[in-house]
Amino acid sequence: MDTRRPTNPAAEEILGLYFPVLDHGFVALVDYMGSDEDIERAARVSYGYGTRRTSETRGLIRYLRRHRHTTPSEMVELKFHCAMPIFVARQWIRHRTASLNEYSGRYSLLPLLFYRPATDQFQAQSATNRQGRGGVSLASLHADAVERWERLRRDAAEQYEWLVSHDVARELARIDLPLSTYTQWYWKIDLHNLLHFLSVRADAHAQWEIRAYARVMAGMLKRVAPLSFEAWVDYELAGTHLSRGELAALRCLVEVRGRDLAARPGAHVAAAELAGLGLSNREADELLAKLAAAPPADDFDLDLGAARSAEEFAREMEAAVPRVDRK
Amino acid sequence: MDTRRPTNPAAEEILGLYFPVLDHGFVALVDYMGSDEDIERAARVSYGYGTRRTSETRGLIRYLRRHRHTTPSEMVELKFHCAMPIFVARQWIRHRTASLNEYSGRYSLLPLLFYRPATDQFQAQSATNRQGRGGVSLASLHADAVERWERLRRDAAEQYEWLVSHDVARELARIDLPLSTYTQWYWKIDLHNLLHFLSVRADAHAQWEIRAYARVMAGMLKRVAPLSFEAWVDYELAGTHLSRGELAALRCLVEVRGRDLAARPGAHVAAAELAGLGLSNREADELLAKLAAAPPADDFDLDLGAARSAEEFAREMEAAVPRVDRK
Amino acid sequence: MDTRRPTNPAAEEILGLYFPVLDHGFVALVDYMGSDEDIERAARVSYGYGTRRTSETRGLIRYLRRHRHTTPSEMVELKFHCAMPIFVARQWIRHRTASLNEYSGRYSLLPLLFYRPATDQFQAQSATNRQGRGGVSLASLHADAVERWERLRRDAAEQYEWLVSHDVARELARIDLPLSTYTQWYWKIDLHNLLHFLSVRADAHAQWEIRAYARVMAGMLKRVAPLSFEAWVDYELAGTHLSRGELAALRCLVEVRGRDLAARPGAHVAAAELAGLGLSNREADELLAKLAAAPPADDFDLDLGAARSAEEFAREMEAAVPRVDRK
Amino acid sequence: MDTRRPTNPAAEEILGLYFPVLDHGFVALVDYMGSDEDIERAARVSYGYGTRRTSETRGLIRYLRRHRHTTPSEMVELKFHCAMPIFVARQWIRHRTASLNEYSGRYSLLPLLFYRPATDQFQAQSATNRQGRGGVSLASLHADAVERWERLRRDAAEQYEWLVSHDVARELARIDLPLSTYTQWYWKIDLHNLLHFLSVRADAHAQWEIRAYARVMAGMLKRVAPLSFEAWVDYELAGTHLSRGELAALRCLVEVRGRDLAARPGAHVAAAELAGLGLSNREADELLAKLAAAPPADDFDLDLGAARSAEEFAREMEAAVPRVDRK
Repeated sequence: MDTRRPTNPAAEEILGLYFPVLDHGFVALVDYMGSDEDIERAARVSYGYGTRRTSETRGLIRYLRRHRHTTPSEMVELKFHCAMPIFVARQWIRHRTASLNEYSGRYSLLPLLFYRPATDQFQAQSATNRQGRGGVSLASLHADAVERWERLRRDAAEQYEWLVSHDVARELARIDLPLSTYTQWYWKIDLHNLLHFLSVRADAHAQWEIRAYARVMAGMLKRVAPLSFEAWVDYELAGTHLSRGELAALRCLVEVRGRDLAARPGAHVAAAELAGLGLSNREADELLAKLAAAPPADDFDLDLGAARSAEEFAREMEAAVPRVDRK
Repeated sequence: MDTRRPTNPAAEEILGLYFPVLDHGFVALVDYMGSDEDIERAARVSYGYGTRRTSETRGLIRYLRRHRHTTPSEMVELKFHCAMPIFVARQWIRHRTASLNEYSGRYSLLPLLFYRPATDQFQAQSATNRQGRGGVSLASLHADAVERWERLRRDAAEQYEWLVSHDVARELARIDLPLSTYTQWYWKIDLHNLLHFLSVRADAHAQWEIRAYARVMAGMLKRVAPLSFEAWVDYELAGTHLSRGELAALRCLVEVRGRDLAARPGAHVAAAELAGLGLSNREADELLAKLAAAPPADDFDLDLGAARSAEEFAREMEAAVPRVDRK
Repeated sequence: MDTRRPTNPAAEEILGLYFPVLDHGFVALVDYMGSDEDIERAARVSYGYGTRRTSETRGLIRYLRRHRHTTPSEMVELKFHCAMPIFVARQWIRHRTASLNEYSGRYSLLPLLFYRPATDQFQAQSATNRQGRGGVSLASLHADAVERWERLRRDAAEQYEWLVSHDVARELARIDLPLSTYTQWYWKIDLHNLLHFLSVRADAHAQWEIRAYARVMAGMLKRVAPLSFEAWVDYELAGTHLSRGELAALRCLVEVRGRDLAARPGAHVAAAELAGLGLSNREADELLAKLAAAPPADDFDLDLGAARSAEEFAREMEAAVPRVDRK
Repeated sequence: MDTRRPTNPAAEEILGLYFPVLDHGFVALVDYMGSDEDIERAARVSYGYGTRRTSETRGLIRYLRRHRHTTPSEMVELKFHCAMPIFVARQWIRHRTASLNEYSGRYSLLPLLFYRPATDQFQAQSATNRQGRGGVSLASLHADAVERWERLRRDAAEQYEWLVSHDVARELARIDLPLSTYTQWYWKIDLHNLLHFLSVRADAHAQWEIRAYARVMAGMLKRVAPLSFEAWVDYELAGTHLSRGELAALRCLVEVRGRDLAARPGAHVAAAELAGLGLSNREADELLAKLAAAPPADDFDLDLGAARSAEEFAREMEAAVPRVDRK
């Protein structure tokens, strides 16, 4: 349809395409408002888009992000339709500055689809990151686990069907469905808060399953507001934060010479000296990790070939809803 | 431009038109996301718009509003460009659930435009509503007041120009500009929170000047989401709230007969009995006012003939910025 | 300990007492800030508490609530420690204007406690409220359901223990725990937003299980800010809202005579006339229900005799955490 | 009074003391909820305070801040009474995640107190920071400016008195008061959001006048939650952020050797090379500034000797309210 609103061809191209995530989930961008130009327009409180060049817009957007002037980036809005396991939904919903409508298990019968972790993600508790998985594969255990998951889910599905077939209130019938059951929602958020979500959820400390969603959404954002996306990668995702002590350590090693930087000849900061600057062992390790070679960057580009239609997912969900005759 | 996003012809028609408010202010709808159909889509978490009839959408939207299921109405977003006196801006900004970018008086020179109340709005302090004006015109005083306003503003403008011409930091030069000085901002808000804003600011207890803005924005909302607008008028604006005591009074006067309602023969609740039901004198007056004849409803229709272009207002603002040569 | 902060004896009396809710859940008030007097102080922006009488404070608080001046009631804050089934937690967390810290199943092993609905709450889907239970008991089915619940939970617990005993990452081991599993959190909210929570969650349309929590929290609020609590009951909980059409119907039946109210002699509004005023069948039913006799009011008083200590619940939780030897 | 709530002697000591800021403003801490221990308690979702040592609490709080686990720090709340010029209030209110009640100029007569910048703060527009003052004193102009301010404020005050003495509605009478007029409010915010406020408003880019308030509030926070304060100083205030390009430059200059850090022999990054890493000229300057010697740290300690009583400020405000006989 024809509109006088700001319109973005790269975003239009993916609008309404459903990108699969995990085994039964998806993310689709279903609407958006504004683009990089609208962030500039709001920051300058200008009467339209004028004749600014892209390089000027880029410069302003990078300046705003670098200096934490985040309010203009609230002027762009994205709306998603997503399906994810409930345990992922429970992490996702902690981000409060978003609008959300979830499929209601009190009102409707639930599709009985469950997330099954693949072998390569079936890992041991991490020894270093005390809340995640640690990279040690438990592949030999996976087949056993799959068998147990299958059995429990079959039983949970059978129980749900039994209860609703006896007309037990749906809000009660659902209470023994596992956290691996898929749910779905509409989720609307502005660009500033989406970037915060992505910073936290695309991070290596986030649970792998929610990171899979964050990666796809980052790819969508890249099409809605490419300059803001680039600034986020450069200043946040691939940047880092230094504490007072870390900065002090670097000042021992690097000096400013006019407008150049130089290594201080022979400068050296031993582990023990880091402690003297107030860094705990853990913080010292974190500093070493920051200065190690940068990991290869993810470009977050979407694989358009993987996208499916809304109808396809709608059919899969519909087919997973139990057919019940009330007894 | 062409878009696959939900598009609304009645909203498109006013997009980017600047509607004058007060003597130098304006409101323009510069972007929107979604419409009534998107509220339904989110409420039902459906895979597209399907084949729902308008009457079904209307029924759902009215049901949602009546029962305070407000989250689906967060799925529609409106973005405005507005100019208003600073004392109005200070009331407006109390609504925290919105995104805002204001013209910066630290960075830029300010246009020196001031709000001058018209004779009919130049009224005495209200005797009943302790915070507003009371309807008693002070027309005979108006000419004197205008003369005082003009003089003070001329002096304030002259002082501002003197300070910036001597290169005093703008953040300091502005501090004696009066609260009647116009400022401007971009303001983005979702439909749910906009309705709350309108309920509070289109209300008779709000200061007349901010009500003038709320009325225009209500007319814009009516074009973006007409069914939501209608539901808001029917359930909130033209509806009312009854306390426990007020409800008890009405139960004395009205009875339910099957599916009909009837006045209880001879029923009467004297002022003293209202006190017995817990109503203060003030509350009793409020109840009588609720039951008096309804005031004629405002239709909030926009006067398209009054709209001006962005360029016109841009020129007016630009012309009001002081021309300074630094000394 | 001694403090110069505003202190409230009725709140102090229950501070840190753990009130049981459902079969393994609880709510405890662990901290509070301010009371009714602080709402008044903020509303008047006064320099202390002065010599105001309780009747004046009460009048102001009722005025503020009646006229939706809600910001002063944000000045009181309550902090709770709560344990509830995950399906209740998922409804609760929809209230975004609160602070929350939940027990982490990624970091810690989870206590394996599950909610089992009692016979009297084991009901059929409601025929009228399309999302709740309907009052029709399914008691004859309950024993069967209990057996199924027990079996499934035993299997889920066994699976969880098997996975963590093989050192599978906790964030994965938990994914087949049922929604009936108990979780716990700290939850801090201001009085204004708590009242909104209570209005929605103590309502008859809320799921019975979360209402059980809301009732206890209402009793706690009553001790922290009794005048605000009373105003909420009088103006919201036991009051009602009338639409434009409902108000029109009542104006046909009731007239204002000076400062009295009287039933209009012979006035009658038939069901068909309600339709003429714009009320759907459903809305007509809702109006009749509003005018029917008031249900007996809940006083929300806490049963201090039911309260238990933090240690008691801590022990119960601790005992339900699986003991695992890593294999 | 006696309380079972967590109580903090260092905070109690300053509770209700009014600390002067600028020429007529103040900040007072009037209430608080919780302390560092409560942040730990919420983070661990524990049943009380247990037997944790301060060093353990400190370690956890530093870990949380370093890794952006900010929700536990929302569990501490501070309430302030503040008076500030309106132009400061307008910057302050941009922080939306706070509760606020401002003195109403619609309801009450306003005290006519105005902020007068001192000579040393009377500076020219900054050449580098395009929105602030630049350090160049305009002392020779100050006496002239004072005279102009005095005259304009006298006229504005006289106009206000004239209008209210003729019973013009207060909401209109105030509209020509200058932005330098003092207002006051109650302001409540949680520790997490207060730290964000302080990071932005205690920063050198903030207007000097609001920084004066931020500094006093930082000193108050230091007494309520000293470990959180220290972590904020170490990780945010005295730390910095590095972009992808800045990090790349440092990796050229510094290498990791085992658990030590060493300057790479002879390593040098010329200004031109910084451009090659994607840094604009402005960003290169920012990097050099980060690596220059650290500025002396502010300890933010409060000067208890400067504190005054609530009554003293109450009297000053009261005395500045115009005495009017309605004509």
